[in-house]
Amino acid sequence: MTAVVAPALSGGVSGAAALGPMVRTVLEALAEGAARRGGPIPAGTPQELFARVARALTEPGGDRAFGRPGDELAHAFAGPGGDDDALRRLTTLVAAGSADPADPACAAHLHCPPLAVAVAADLAVSALNPSQDSWDQAPATTALETLVLGELAELVGYPSTAAGVLTSGGTESNLMGLMLARDRVLGRASGCRIERSGLPAGAPRARIFASAAAHFSVRRAAALLGLGEDAVVTIPVDRDLRMNQDELAAALRECVRRGELPMAVVATAGTTDTGAIDPLNACADLAAEHGAWMHVDAAYGGGALLSDRLAPLLAGLERADSVSLDWHKLGWQPVAAGVFLVRRAETYASLARRAAYLNPADDEDAGYSSLLGLSLRTTRRPDAFKIAVTLATLGRDGLGRLVDTCHDLAHAGAAAVRTHPRLELHADPVLTAFLFRYLPADPALADRVNAGLRRRLLREGRAVVGRTELPGEGPGRVRLKLTLLNPHVTATEVERLVHLVAAAGEAEEETL
Amino acid sequence: MTAVVAPALSGGVSGAAALGPMVRTVLEALAEGAARRGGPIPAGTPQELFARVARALTEPGGDRAFGRPGDELAHAFAGPGGDDDALRRLTTLVAAGSADPADPACAAHLHCPPLAVAVAADLAVSALNPSQDSWDQAPATTALETLVLGELAELVGYPSTAAGVLTSGGTESNLMGLMLARDRVLGRASGCRIERSGLPAGAPRARIFASAAAHFSVRRAAALLGLGEDAVVTIPVDRDLRMNQDELAAALRECVRRGELPMAVVATAGTTDTGAIDPLNACADLAAEHGAWMHVDAAYGGGALLSDRLAPLLAGLERADSVSLDWHKLGWQPVAAGVFLVRRAETYASLARRAAYLNPADDEDAGYSSLLGLSLRTTRRPDAFKIAVTLATLGRDGLGRLVDTCHDLAHAGAAAVRTHPRLELHADPVLTAFLFRYLPADPALADRVNAGLRRRLLREGRAVVGRTELPGEGPGRVRLKLTLLNPHVTATEVERLVHLVAAAGEAEEETL
Repeated sequence: MTAVVAPALSGGVSGAAALGPMVRTVLEALAEGAARRGGPIPAGTPQELFARVARALTEPGGDRAFGRPGDELAHAFAGPGGDDDALRRLTTLVAAGSADPADPACAAHLHCPPLAVAVAADLAVSALNPSQDSWDQAPATTALETLVLGELAELVGYPSTAAGVLTSGGTESNLMGLMLARDRVLGRASGCRIERSGLPAGAPRARIFASAAAHFSVRRAAALLGLGEDAVVTIPVDRDLRMNQDELAAALRECVRRGELPMAVVATAGTTDTGAIDPLNACADLAAEHGAWMHVDAAYGGGALLSDRLAPLLAGLERADSVSLDWHKLGWQPVAAGVFLVRRAETYASLARRAAYLNPADDEDAGYSSLLGLSLRTTRRPDAFKIAVTLATLGRDGLGRLVDTCHDLAHAGAAAVRTHPRLELHADPVLTAFLFRYLPADPALADRVNAGLRRRLLREGRAVVGRTELPGEGPGRVRLKLTLLNPHVTATEVERLVHLVAAAGEAEEETL
Repeated sequence: MTAVVAPALSGGVSGAAALGPMVRTVLEALAEGAARRGGPIPAGTPQELFARVARALTEPGGDRAFGRPGDELAHAFAGPGGDDDALRRLTTLVAAGSADPADPACAAHLHCPPLAVAVAADLAVSALNPSQDSWDQAPATTALETLVLGELAELVGYPSTAAGVLTSGGTESNLMGLMLARDRVLGRASGCRIERSGLPAGAPRARIFASAAAHFSVRRAAALLGLGEDAVVTIPVDRDLRMNQDELAAALRECVRRGELPMAVVATAGTTDTGAIDPLNACADLAAEHGAWMHVDAAYGGGALLSDRLAPLLAGLERADSVSLDWHKLGWQPVAAGVFLVRRAETYASLARRAAYLNPADDEDAGYSSLLGLSLRTTRRPDAFKIAVTLATLGRDGLGRLVDTCHDLAHAGAAAVRTHPRLELHADPVLTAFLFRYLPADPALADRVNAGLRRRLLREGRAVVGRTELPGEGPGRVRLKLTLLNPHVTATEVERLVHLVAAAGEAEEETL
């Protein structure tokens, strides 16, 4: 036996005691790092930041930062509360080098500031390290995930036949929805089990219908599934970036006319850039008419279910065959907290798997149920736990008030844009985000100035503002974006951010 | 504006202070829960545990545990350090209801007890909530992940052309390897860009070669990719569950003879059940000869790279086109800490994506590099951070000593099995796991007794032992498994566990 004093573990009866001093170190380093940063993002160029991180990984004690085969690292193991130098140093580094979504001037992405209570719950998960792929790695959290999903299915308006799983986010959830659609709709049309024998050579070309403002993960999923990105038919959107239902109807008819298979309609409930919500009932009608699977990407907009004011926007969601929700967006959870739900558990069939070492039939018969057949992953962290703690602490209503606050903030920001002579609002906010741009004197410079002012604000460490492009072709489509996800921010702070953007536009324009 | 006192966030300058009391609550609840459990897993049936979790989610204050639309939840928001009742109650519940990999009698799966320092580092990530899909959501951790992957590529023996990404685990990494293989090898053979146009109808049938002991995620990946599980050709294994290289050579020749395409060879470096390592150099030779992609699933065995004693077992790994490593197995990280690496960054081409809102070309030109095109996910937690802190704290050598300790423990356990008259060892451990079984008086009852004794130990809350089946057909293939991943355990404790299993076998046999 090698004589080793092994470093402390997080589990067992003594794990919490070992964690105590280390967790204190982390909290001190987080505070220190935030103070050093002193704003929403570290000032400087990306190259400067990269160099700073690289130095920190090799200095001081740098030679032991990443030991390599053959190195003579005479380094004693850390005992409980012992050597926490690297933990302190690297936590401070990363805190100082973060974009902090809790800062009022950080409002670019669907990148929420997590609730402290959810972060604390996530610590429990890290320390206990359950894995959801077999009962005997996760007895309590297997039950907990099932119960949480039941509650979320009810929130969506699904019947008790629903099933689902926690995912890494909307991208994985969208992939799952389209995979089940492929295996079910194309499988039936071609009379084969695709998961077994692969995509049938003689089958009709399968088509997926999604709007021009749908998330790129829809095309990515089509690529991964072997259907190819070109299988996705892009449906035009109206000015608010909402799918045009007449265009969808026409595209479905054209698909059938060409002898192709309308496999899935993907409606977006809350597009990434504007929060636009596709006409869900019309999409459901058209999908049903053509025998297509209906998937709703509600990764962002699903948060509206928490708010009495906004929930009516999602009418028709309960008709979807599958839904993506992300609680790390309008749910204030640390990443990841994705949710995938199907209306009918039996549509999960093609994903079911039996692994002798994880879910043998006689164990399942004895009640040792496994979630293995519900997920694309094997090892899986119980992200349902932080959601359960958050819901138990705040309730749906408590979370709904946060959603409403952010909705109000977006309207305050849009009003500030509308009244500013050099800014142009694209459209009123639907949820908590809106697009706008700075108008330079020379309209031909608009894209360049807007892209440049955003990088200027990043470089100066003053603001993190989003940037995107409107669907279509040609210049003039670059837009800035504010995504309001911080319920602690005030309307005054949002107005200040809008004015900061305008001032950066003026400064940028002068350099051209 | 709705007047709301929003609950505390984890970020900003005050986040750490808000987290302090909540984190203390979690640590107290973890200790309390572990004490209540008093063993490796809670005693009782799965049905009893499910009922206990269900009760806890609806009691006390149960009606507010999961608020539903229309509920009148008069619940005040939690302030910093305020209402932590749900956090305490549910953390205690989950701690008491966990299978604890830090307990000496919990040794079933590749389910490691995390290091306290890695768990503390993971808390920093939860609190800061960076997302790796764009630079402006993760400035420091974008740089950090790139640097950590460079170190891990060097550990594998890859040249500086390597690239990679953190994943949710071996299942996702194996999927990525096979996706790149499909897009590159089948794409070239059929002259089309599969990610764009889908699997070509007239192309030769693509085949994947993996051993009978390869992980089921290989077949699952084939299903997801549209190739179908039947695309996987199963190569027989020897008694140690190592792929037979003559059989592989013959299968590849047969594939070519039938006009099919040898797309990928998947070698396993550390099978889930026995830690068997396929002949990597022979696999690399055969893959090269046939123009097939070589992927090595080293999710478990990759940990051997940390140990001077065991690293030579992985000779040839550096010849793989892609590799899966899991630091949440032999790396003592909390889930997830998967790693996917390719030898040549250019082979990543088919996954590259441009999203106007995440990685516009002019931003990338300005140095705002994004990891988006390296991952199947969009939103993504920086799991590289805990690995960086662990490596900086312990060094490769420090981790290598933990690997060696667990290797020693597996040998101690195997020795105890070998000397016990009622137990049968399948084969000596290669890494840190081994298979064995209890021998009942009536050999026809062997499968039933072994499966039953394992459930008996679970039900009594006394031990968590693995159970699997040897490859092949027919009865007599059920085996028990011990996976030693806890470097704090002593050889005496492992021997005690082996004897506990034997006693449970006797008890189980008596009930039949």
